[in-house]
Amino acid sequence: MKILVALGGNAILRRGGTGTAAEQEATIDSTSKRLVGIIGEGHDVALTHGNGPQVGDILLAYDLAKGVLSPMPLDVCGAQSQGMIGYMLQQSLENELKSVGIMKSVATVLTQTVVKATDRAFANPTKPIGQFYDEAEAKDLERRNGWSMINDSNRGFRRVVPSPNPVSFLESETIKCLFDEGTVVIAAGGGGVPVVKDTGSRRYIGVEAVIDKDLAAALLAGLLGVDLLMILADVDGVFLNYGRPEQRLVDKMSVQEARRYLAEGQFPAGSMGPKVEAVVRFIESGGKRAVIGSLERVEATLGGEAGTNFYQ
Amino acid sequence: MKILVALGGNAILRRGGTGTAAEQEATIDSTSKRLVGIIGEGHDVALTHGNGPQVGDILLAYDLAKGVLSPMPLDVCGAQSQGMIGYMLQQSLENELKSVGIMKSVATVLTQTVVKATDRAFANPTKPIGQFYDEAEAKDLERRNGWSMINDSNRGFRRVVPSPNPVSFLESETIKCLFDEGTVVIAAGGGGVPVVKDTGSRRYIGVEAVIDKDLAAALLAGLLGVDLLMILADVDGVFLNYGRPEQRLVDKMSVQEARRYLAEGQFPAGSMGPKVEAVVRFIESGGKRAVIGSLERVEATLGGEAGTNFYQ
Repeated sequence: MKILVALGGNAILRRGGTGTAAEQEATIDSTSKRLVGIIGEGHDVALTHGNGPQVGDILLAYDLAKGVLSPMPLDVCGAQSQGMIGYMLQQSLENELKSVGIMKSVATVLTQTVVKATDRAFANPTKPIGQFYDEAEAKDLERRNGWSMINDSNRGFRRVVPSPNPVSFLESETIKCLFDEGTVVIAAGGGGVPVVKDTGSRRYIGVEAVIDKDLAAALLAGLLGVDLLMILADVDGVFLNYGRPEQRLVDKMSVQEARRYLAEGQFPAGSMGPKVEAVVRFIESGGKRAVIGSLERVEATLGGEAGTNFYQ
Repeated sequence: MKILVALGGNAILRRGGTGTAAEQEATIDSTSKRLVGIIGEGHDVALTHGNGPQVGDILLAYDLAKGVLSPMPLDVCGAQSQGMIGYMLQQSLENELKSVGIMKSVATVLTQTVVKATDRAFANPTKPIGQFYDEAEAKDLERRNGWSMINDSNRGFRRVVPSPNPVSFLESETIKCLFDEGTVVIAAGGGGVPVVKDTGSRRYIGVEAVIDKDLAAALLAGLLGVDLLMILADVDGVFLNYGRPEQRLVDKMSVQEARRYLAEGQFPAGSMGPKVEAVVRFIESGGKRAVIGSLERVEATLGGEAGTNFYQ
């Protein structure tokens, strides 16, 4: 079976951890062991992953270095995070595969994701990134850098950037070619670096935005023609009435039901919402099966005994 | 013809420039135009590049962020720089290729370069990286981090790391597969992330070292079976008696002559030495032709009318 696995941030950077490279590597090794378990069953696996904490750290480092170093724009920082996470993931996967005697190549393809310059998200930035500032700093950054700032859950002010809809990947052919050759391909990390086609020059240029990694995963799953899209996070699956006494984990959901729940606002915008939207899009565009579940139970999730399974 | 182009740092970051992302992009666009010129003549081109200034900036940013962020080891910083430079190069090349109507894929393959744990370089770190420190800071870093520090040309103290010999690439198959498919492949950026096979666990792990990008280029040229290795820098070619009144630019050099000049110490260790060593290795291992010349005159260098040409 062909499978695209979308890994959440916790597969790389343990929540509440220290964020050292050694700790990230240990977390990634544990992730790799689980993934090699399913590759060992004969499945062809492609991977994508989030980059929120890592790109936040890179932005923070440049911010602390300001006055000494030229700050790098968000697209360049995103590319750095793809290099960093891709390296750690591919090294770990190569090691785990070799240790169980599987001869498969692993490759990270640096990915640019095309978004529309007319995407309404550009008029309405919603995605908080980077560190917290106090109100005076926030006003200053709005004025100096032209950033949009919000008061984030009263923890302070944060920069918000647009989260436009992914339309295509500039590296589609490369990603598909490698996957079809049997390579464990890592692509569209952090949703890919967002680029738009400049109307004047007709050139693709990076933009200060963030693409939801699960929506990018749905697009990638369609491109690769996989049989199964697995969105793995630190959740058992999709809950209805989450956080209320009557909350319940759903084991199966039709796309029609999912669309209704999405419209009802059952799933929070920043977390479960885009995951459910992603699996729905994948199935609506012809995908057979998708599941949202936990990395810890990847085998059971693959077997349909855990997680929330989505069907036509 | 199949060509591997090794780009020097000046192809990306202009010497004496400001180091902003916009300036790097403008420099890269000018580089891409020249490269697309030779791709347009029907040649299959693969690319590799240096990363010295970029990885230096990344190290500096983490250093300035110490106490706030966990510092990242050199291998992880190198992977970040591959992501960053690969992104800017591939975007620019894709744009230039499209603008002249050439339909070719461009892809960056994040590359790990295997070195031997027994490489003598590990006992003798020689490659200065990162910023300058005063003597007290240098002593402190030696004690705290176990770094080797040197007094660099009396400009201050700098960290030195080993520069071991590149042996192979973990991503060989992927790089070769894409190049053979006609992709403009960008690989082994900054010489690749150096990894060694841990004798106990048999796993590949990153090491705190830097691989010379020209020696990595020679290895890559052999892997890809190219007809020509072009090492492009901000030099017209190889000089004999460089810096002395009798200095002269050499237009042709046999491998035998080059070996003799290398033994005589004609070429400085940090700059022209590894470039000449790289072309010699490439030809000694069966390569037909190699040239060291300037990016500005890439067409003439390709035609044999500029640069220093090496032959068997």
